[in-house]
Order: sequence, then structure tokens, then C-alpha cells
Amino acid sequence: MEKQIVKPSILPGFMELLPAEQISFNWMMDTIRKNYESFGFTPIDTPTIEKSEILLAKGGGETEKQIYRFSKGDTDMSLRFDLTVPLARYVAQHYSALNFPFRRYHIAKVFRGERNQKGRYREFYQCDIDIIGNNSLSIVNDAEIPSVIYATFKDLGFDNFVIRINNRKVLNGFFDSLGIADKGAVLRIIDKIDKIGVDNVKAELAELEVQSEAIEKIIEFISIKGKTDDTIETLKAMQIENESFLSALNELETVVNYIRKFQVPDTHFVVDLTIARGLDYYTGTVYETILSDYPSLGSVCSGGRYDNLAENYTKQSLPGVGISIGLTRLFYQLNEAKMIQMNTSATKSKALLIAFDGYMDYAIELAAKLRANHIICEVYFEEGKIRKKFGYADKQGIPYAISIGENEVETSSYTVKDMATGEQKNMNLEEMIKILC
Amino acid sequence: MEKQIVKPSILPGFMELLPAEQISFNWMMDTIRKNYESFGFTPIDTPTIEKSEILLAKGGGETEKQIYRFSKGDTDMSLRFDLTVPLARYVAQHYSALNFPFRRYHIAKVFRGERNQKGRYREFYQCDIDIIGNNSLSIVNDAEIPSVIYATFKDLGFDNFVIRINNRKVLNGFFDSLGIADKGAVLRIIDKIDKIGVDNVKAELAELEVQSEAIEKIIEFISIKGKTDDTIETLKAMQIENESFLSALNELETVVNYIRKFQVPDTHFVVDLTIARGLDYYTGTVYETILSDYPSLGSVCSGGRYDNLAENYTKQSLPGVGISIGLTRLFYQLNEAKMIQMNTSATKSKALLIAFDGYMDYAIELAAKLRANHIICEVYFEEGKIRKKFGYADKQGIPYAISIGENEVETSSYTVKDMATGEQKNMNLEEMIKILC
Repeated sequence: MEKQIVKPSILPGFMELLPAEQISFNWMMDTIRKNYESFGFTPIDTPTIEKSEILLAKGGGETEKQIYRFSKGDTDMSLRFDLTVPLARYVAQHYSALNFPFRRYHIAKVFRGERNQKGRYREFYQCDIDIIGNNSLSIVNDAEIPSVIYATFKDLGFDNFVIRINNRKVLNGFFDSLGIADKGAVLRIIDKIDKIGVDNVKAELAELEVQSEAIEKIIEFISIKGKTDDTIETLKAMQIENESFLSALNELETVVNYIRKFQVPDTHFVVDLTIARGLDYYTGTVYETILSDYPSLGSVCSGGRYDNLAENYTKQSLPGVGISIGLTRLFYQLNEAKMIQMNTSATKSKALLIAFDGYMDYAIELAAKLRANHIICEVYFEEGKIRKKFGYADKQGIPYAISIGENEVETSSYTVKDMATGEQKNMNLEEMIKILC
Repeated sequence: MEKQIVKPSILPGFMELLPAEQISFNWMMDTIRKNYESFGFTPIDTPTIEKSEILLAKGGGETEKQIYRFSKGDTDMSLRFDLTVPLARYVAQHYSALNFPFRRYHIAKVFRGERNQKGRYREFYQCDIDIIGNNSLSIVNDAEIPSVIYATFKDLGFDNFVIRINNRKVLNGFFDSLGIADKGAVLRIIDKIDKIGVDNVKAELAELEVQSEAIEKIIEFISIKGKTDDTIETLKAMQIENESFLSALNELETVVNYIRKFQVPDTHFVVDLTIARGLDYYTGTVYETILSDYPSLGSVCSGGRYDNLAENYTKQSLPGVGISIGLTRLFYQLNEAKMIQMNTSATKSKALLIAFDGYMDYAIELAAKLRANHIICEVYFEEGKIRKKFGYADKQGIPYAISIGENEVETSSYTVKDMATGEQKNMNLEEMIKILC
């Protein structure tokens, strides 16, 4: 009887990479991790599956529709859809064992059963940092976050990007000064300005029965553009006599001053009064990051300040500030746009060791010596023609092939072939280590 | 109205660590990864969720009961329960894009809804390597695997461990020579010898209607202990005239010879004829790894050779050899047995920078300089008494606290406190970098 074959495939909306791309992806993830760690963020790793009552404690909205929820026995469980809810649960649960401010990073997969569309994934990596205070958290933290973004994206190889910064309280205070009741609705409309344009924003605000004078002021306000210091001066000059506005403006100015202390150059951050970032979560500073060579990607790293992280799980007041990089989507977009120099090797091996008949022992020994010098390498163990062996090095993108035979063993000098140029040279161990390191 | 609080907790059978333990866990994972990579294994990352028809293609057994299976819309999907089935699907699916032998590592969480018991987890990390050949795969690969185990466990800080090696075909050939029909049943019984003892093994074999003469030979056979070379000599001396036995013995001897070439010392591996590792999967060489100081843990790294990886997904013949470390369980056991030197810091920060009033700018600047020298550090931004700031360094286990005030800025010399000894010293930047590196 013929064995039944199931056609090998994965579900739509899931990313799976071939080795060369995977190496690039992992390099990005490692680079993000290294930068997060250098600022003293500490790793946590929460369960992928949590109680549904925990993940859905906040309830409502898109989340409930998109979540992967299921039962096993009597247990109602779900896959996490972000890393913020698990962080809130973690901090509330382990409150007495943690020291505050609690600086954590978390890089892991999250799951959302979204409608399937190009570049949107149902399983994707988020790379988050957050700083959680106990009752209070200094505004200086809000200024450190852009310096982490700056260091990370620089290290990822980007030169041209801008971190857009705003403060939700500035907007709120301004709306208060105009006597606007439904600030959430106005924010929602403003948030769309890049997509729908000024005229549509005006129209939608009018529909909301915002007075035309107020609409003009709103448009004037969110049209303030230019250098960070000019923006702040313009805001001051508006002479808005609203206390929360003035204190927020002072906060924004403080953040800007400290960002400079953190050595983020003015070329890489700007105050942008149009940024609101969602509706009911962020309460102060907010961030977006735009790759200047490819603004259509939208924000590649976003976040902000929130007053109370874990109100669904504890009565403790836990203010925080954080950001997230959606790595899977970012990688897809960069790859599509050919914005990243994709690794072309299917392995990290620097050398393939090829033994002539009867010299496998020496190849194995040499590989151990190279590894002892931190050189990633592999030995070709299979039998076959010498062409096939070099062909494997070529197809895998291994930069050097080292032959080991009678001559090599007698002279302790090995034939090293540069696979890119085809050039061959005889080298002793020391010389090899030098070029392979 | 008072906000409803959901008690923060996770599901039973899931591991969640506090930061200090998490750092130790991640160190183990990174160490395993580094060693796997050094041998030229390349990373893959498959979806956590796959089609149920893919994951259950083999069907039957415990797997089907333990799997987390659910639907969203019309899609029947499941969480992976190991990394081998996804590897088989991956290799079959991407067959034409891969080069063989395909050397991959995969470190990721897998999910099994097992009965809840101490030290057993429903979500756990597996750390796998496999080498997959196209139609054939040299036996030398079977000898390389123990050298990866050896390098990895050494690097994890273990000195006393033994890799037990056997070849399933040796057992099979031996059973054939005794005319035993149901080899699987006999293997199952032999596999339990460490748990149930010789007498029970004999009794169970008798129940299976194995002839008493054959039972004696089986017991004699699996009682062969001692040095690897003696074991092989004893096997040869048994003069079993069965062709598959003799070729398997030759294979085992070849593997042993090569293992020595791979510089695994005889103190760290042994031929153990009692090892069978499961029933229908492995077909040749099999491995177990025992920590000699704590044999009751059982095997901490196991695997073997299989004839055909992906027969459920392709007609291609794909033999392979591989191993797996169940890191979550291993970490739990080592921790319980106090077998690992647990990291005691809740952060990787080497220094906490503490600014006196008005000197925050300088602290921020100094932190940037330290980070530029690859020193992980953080600044304490919160207001409060100086005692509280040093208290944070102490509780977090940060080794050094650096104070920055008027004196320090004027002299470019900083007060560095060794938090373990309480000793304080004035140092310039260079001196600080030296002790913090």
C-alpha cells in the first residue's frame, strides 16, 4: 500500500523564512536585544498561553474578535495578542518580588487572527521595552526611550529616520481650552490626517459639531511644523491660558531638553503635534519612528507613557513608558522594498573543510582547531566527487573551502579557496585563522 | 464604581521566572545556541501554529491526546508539540530551495497538554539540531553529534557527564539471531530496565513467550558493561552469525572511532547496549546524556539516527540524525537540585549611575560613554533620598554604584562604590571602564 502523503504547507498569514533570510531576521532580533540590554533592560519570558480571563480583562474592541481562544478540559485559554497585557499581569503578580523602576524587555511572538492581507501576519514578533514605576516615574525616563530607539535603529544600519514626539496632555489641554467635550473622537480624526488630508479632517470635525472657529484653531495647531524649538516657541506664543496645557507644554519641553542630553541629534527627532497613538491607553509622551527614505511604511517603532499599567490586576498605581518594534512586519516591508542588505549565505559557516580520501580525520581535527578560535565551520562528510563538495560550499554561500589531503598534512599548509573569487592559496593554521576571523 | 480586579495568575503547568532566574535561563539558551552555531548549524523558525492535518499526519498515540487543537473560522489548527514534525514539513516543503546535507538548529517553545505534575511543563523549550541528507547521509555525522553534545555541556559548566551510545540495528540483528518476532515489544521492556530491574524485565519477557534460553542471552547481552572497546570486543566474541548484526556492529565501531577523532574523551562517552530510545522512530545510532552527579534526572540530551524524516509529506528519502535538549525541564531540575550557580542579579547592568541634585545631565553623559565601551549600565532617574538610590542598586544586584556630583564633574573623577564590599574609590573614566568590563 502506498503511503498517504499530506501536502506540506503552512497556514496563510504566517511567516516562514529560508535559512539565508532567517539569518538576516535573527541578526535584526539580536541587534535589537543587544541594544535593549545595553540600557539595563532585563529579559522576561511569559507563557504564550494564558487564562482568557486575564488576557481579556480589559475586554471589548478588536482584541476579542482577533484572539485565538480555545478550551482544553475545563480551561478557557488564549494565545497572547501583545506583550503589554502579559507585562501588566506579570508586574501585578510578582509585584512584591520586583524592584522599581522595573526595566524589562520582552522579544517574543504574539498572535492575532486578523483578516488575511499582504504584509499582515497572524503570528509575529514584538520587541518591547517598558519602564514601570511604583506610584511615580520620573519624566526623564520619557527622554531616555528615544535614545534607545536611536541607538537601536542606528545599529540596525539605518541613518535616516526621525523619532516623532508628542504629549497627549498638550492636545488634551488645548482641546479643553476650546471647550471640546469628546476629545477621543477629535483625536481619532486628527490621527488620520496623514491618510485622509486636511479637508476631510475639517469635514469630519464639522460633522462632530465642533465650532468652525475651533476647527480652524485645531488645524492651525496641528499644522505647526518645523524645528523642535520653533514648535515649542509657537506653542508658548499661542498664550493658551489652560493650566493642564501649560504643565503639559512644560513636560514636553523638559523631555526635549533631556533627549538632547541623551545625545539624540536634532536631525533624528522632532515634536509632531499630530501624533496621538490610539485612544485610551497613552496619557503623556507618545512616540512614532519614521524611516525617512520610506515614510509609507508608517511608524516602525511606537509607544508612549501610560498612567496605570495594571489596573485590571492590582490596585497598585503603576505608571510606565515603553515602545514596541513589530519585527515581523518590519522585516517583511524592508525585504519587499529591498531596504535591507539581505544576507545571501544559507549558513553562518565561514569555511567548509573538504577531505581527500583517507584524510577525514585531519579535517575533523582542523575543524576543532578553528572552532577553538571562534571560527564557525563545518566538515563535508559525504562521499562523492570533489566538484560536488565545492558545489555545496558555493550553493550554501560559505566564503572559504579548505582542502585537506596528503600534501596538506605533510606540510601543515592547507589549500584555501576563496569561493567568491576562485583564488586559491596555501596557508598555515595561523594565516587561516586571520582571514576567517 | 470600583474597578473589577482579576487576580493575576498563570495557568498550571507553565513556567514563568523572575528576572534573576530568567537571566540564568537565557544564558543557558544562548550557550546552547552558540555551540550549535559553531558547528555550522543554521537557524530556522517555523510557525507555532500549524494545520492540524500536518501536525497529526503521523497520527495515533499520546500526541493526539496532548495536542492543543482548535478552530478559527473553518481552519483546524494546532500548536506544535515538538520541533521534529515541523522540521519534516519544512524540509519537504522547501526541498528544492535547500542544500543537503541540511544542518539546522531550532530553539523554540513546544506545547503538550500533559497531565499536570511537578517538573513537567505544558509549554517548554526544545533545543534541537538535526542533519538531513538527501537519499543518503554519511555515518560520520553520527559521530559528530556527540562532539556537539560534549562542547555544549562543557560550555554549560558541566564536567561530569556521559553520552551513552547504542545502535538500534545491533539490537535488531541480535533479536533476529534469536528468532524474536515482536522486537518492538522486547525493546519496550528492555528500555525499562533502569526503572524496574532485571527480574521484572525477565518476567515481562517470559510473559511475551520469549524462550528462557533467549531471555538469558538477552540479559547477558544488555548486561555487557564497561569500557567501550571491551564492549565492542565482547560483542564480536559472541560470534553472532547474523548479517545485519555484523554490519550494525561495524557501524557502531566506526562511530566510536570517529567520536574519538572528534576529541570526545573516553571519560565522556560509552557504548550502552540497553539504550533503545522510543520505538518506531530511530533506526540506527541512538544517544542519551546522563549527568553523572545526578543520574536520577534521566537523559538530558537524547536523539539518534532515523531513516526517513518526512515520509508523511514527500516521497523523497531523507535520512537524518539529531538530538534535542528539553531546556525548560532541565532548568527546573538543575534549579531544584541546586546544580546550577544561579545568577543573583535581577539585571545585567554592571553599574548604576546616581546623580546628585542638578547633575543628572552628567550622569546621562557618563552612561553614554560607558555604553560606547560595551558596558551595560543604567541611570537612576527617580527623585528620593540617596539611601533609596543605593538601595535599588543593592536589591537589583548591580555590582557598582557610581555617584556624580559637583566634585566628580570638576575633577572628572567619580566615586565608585563596590556594592558587595561597600568599598568606595575615586576613579577616572579609564579606570572605571577597566573594572566594569
